Amino acid sequence: MRLAAGVEYDGSGFFGWQRQRQSPTVQACLEHALSQVANHPLQVHCAGRTDTGVHAHCQVVHFDTRAERDERSWVLGTNSHLPDGISVLWVRPVPDDFHARFSARRRRYRYRILNRWVRPAIDRCRVAWVRHPLDAAAMDEAAGLLQGEHDFSSFRAVGCQARSPVRSVYSASVVRHGSELWFDIEANAFVYHMVRNVAGSLIAVGRRQQPAGWIGELLDACDRTAAGITAPAAGLYFVAPSYPDFPKLPTHEEIGFSS
Amino acid sequence: MRLAAGVEYDGSGFFGWQRQRQSPTVQACLEHALSQVANHPLQVHCAGRTDTGVHAHCQVVHFDTRAERDERSWVLGTNSHLPDGISVLWVRPVPDDFHARFSARRRRYRYRILNRWVRPAIDRCRVAWVRHPLDAAAMDEAAGLLQGEHDFSSFRAVGCQARSPVRSVYSASVVRHGSELWFDIEANAFVYHMVRNVAGSLIAVGRRQQPAGWIGELLDACDRTAAGITAPAAGLYFVAPSYPDFPKLPTHEEIGFSS
Repeated sequence: MRLAAGVEYDGSGFFGWQRQRQSPTVQACLEHALSQVANHPLQVHCAGRTDTGVHAHCQVVHFDTRAERDERSWVLGTNSHLPDGISVLWVRPVPDDFHARFSARRRRYRYRILNRWVRPAIDRCRVAWVRHPLDAAAMDEAAGLLQGEHDFSSFRAVGCQARSPVRSVYSASVVRHGSELWFDIEANAFVYHMVRNVAGSLIAVGRRQQPAGWIGELLDACDRTAAGITAPAAGLYFVAPSYPDFPKLPTHEEIGFSS
Repeated sequence: MRLAAGVEYDGSGFFGWQRQRQSPTVQACLEHALSQVANHPLQVHCAGRTDTGVHAHCQVVHFDTRAERDERSWVLGTNSHLPDGISVLWVRPVPDDFHARFSARRRRYRYRILNRWVRPAIDRCRVAWVRHPLDAAAMDEAAGLLQGEHDFSSFRAVGCQARSPVRSVYSASVVRHGSELWFDIEANAFVYHMVRNVAGSLIAVGRRQQPAGWIGELLDACDRTAAGITAPAAGLYFVAPSYPDFPKLPTHEEIGFSS
């Protein structure tokens, strides 16, 4: 039987998503906890692997199991075996052709920038801090240039395992919320470090080191060395993937009292 | 010379505000860091002492010093000597009759409740978690009954050092923001544990264990044992005090690039 699960995590306590031999990772913790509830070893596959320090509001995974439990038992049982930086939000049965990664049609990320001259205290591991004033309108104009199908080679980190650098961006915007700027982007998929690399270049635009049109030039250049720095992991949130072919799965907005 | 400072902190790493012999407290860390910059020992006085685990967006303190530094040096120098859960936001000269506690005319607190059936991961030390559905409209109606001058004995913890239990509440409301409920309250001052004790009773109203009017009955009863439990510290934020007699001090909303 195949099950899907939604998982929230605070990336600051983990060495990223992917299982490693020694360091604590989200995948390793989750597989251990689910295996305790299932009473047999199991492996999970996720919608989008995240790096060290990157958070997720609703990562989605799938796994196969022989265990028969109701949703309440899966969720509460698994959470009781997880460190407190990870929380399973829901667990649902899915058809055997569901795959957390390959069935995901869109993925949403949010990048949070605290923009003030003094460092953060309360949100220190949950935002990127930029001490120089940022022009949110210029950044939003620049983000708009990302929309559509483009070759993202200029924003693709060394070590990217994807075959093609072409991705379709459905929406990208920068909006100021008080002392924070939120860069929201939705695409079919992302090349390695794409959101953080784009965010680094948007910050250069926001500081008026580059005009908004520079982002278009970078897309045309297809050259990673032309673009800005990689922005810090702390500000990045994997919001949620979407599975339009599997409409019974909860959307990110529906997490509450669904069970 | 007397200076005032605005201070943000994440209460989860400290044993509250007040200096203690051994445990790390916000006051002890702040006095140590300011003394390093001033080059002489100094003491700070705050607008409102907070308990273990309670956060502050803008606590205000004052201190006396012989040191002459510009604001930039005070802020950046002090922050370089502080643990990363505390950040000085601004430092300004004030008249000698300014007192962080006695000059404060109003104080604002926010209590954040995450209201969903699964535990928080990302905000686990920054919200109170209530797993049962809460009726925000009933809680808002109940909060409205707090407005005005009342005897708050029913919401006053043992050990309160205030002479009188009478306080004036200027505004009190509960508003839902997605899966969170925010209880905002502004008063001239607060008796010990008042916000957490009121929050505990509002949660009972939200769970429909009590009608909204119960809050009015509790105010009349003047009996701590009549009211609900003390809600957890993790959800509580001291937002800011206000000093209408000292209009040159930055307001909470003005923190950004003022220096």
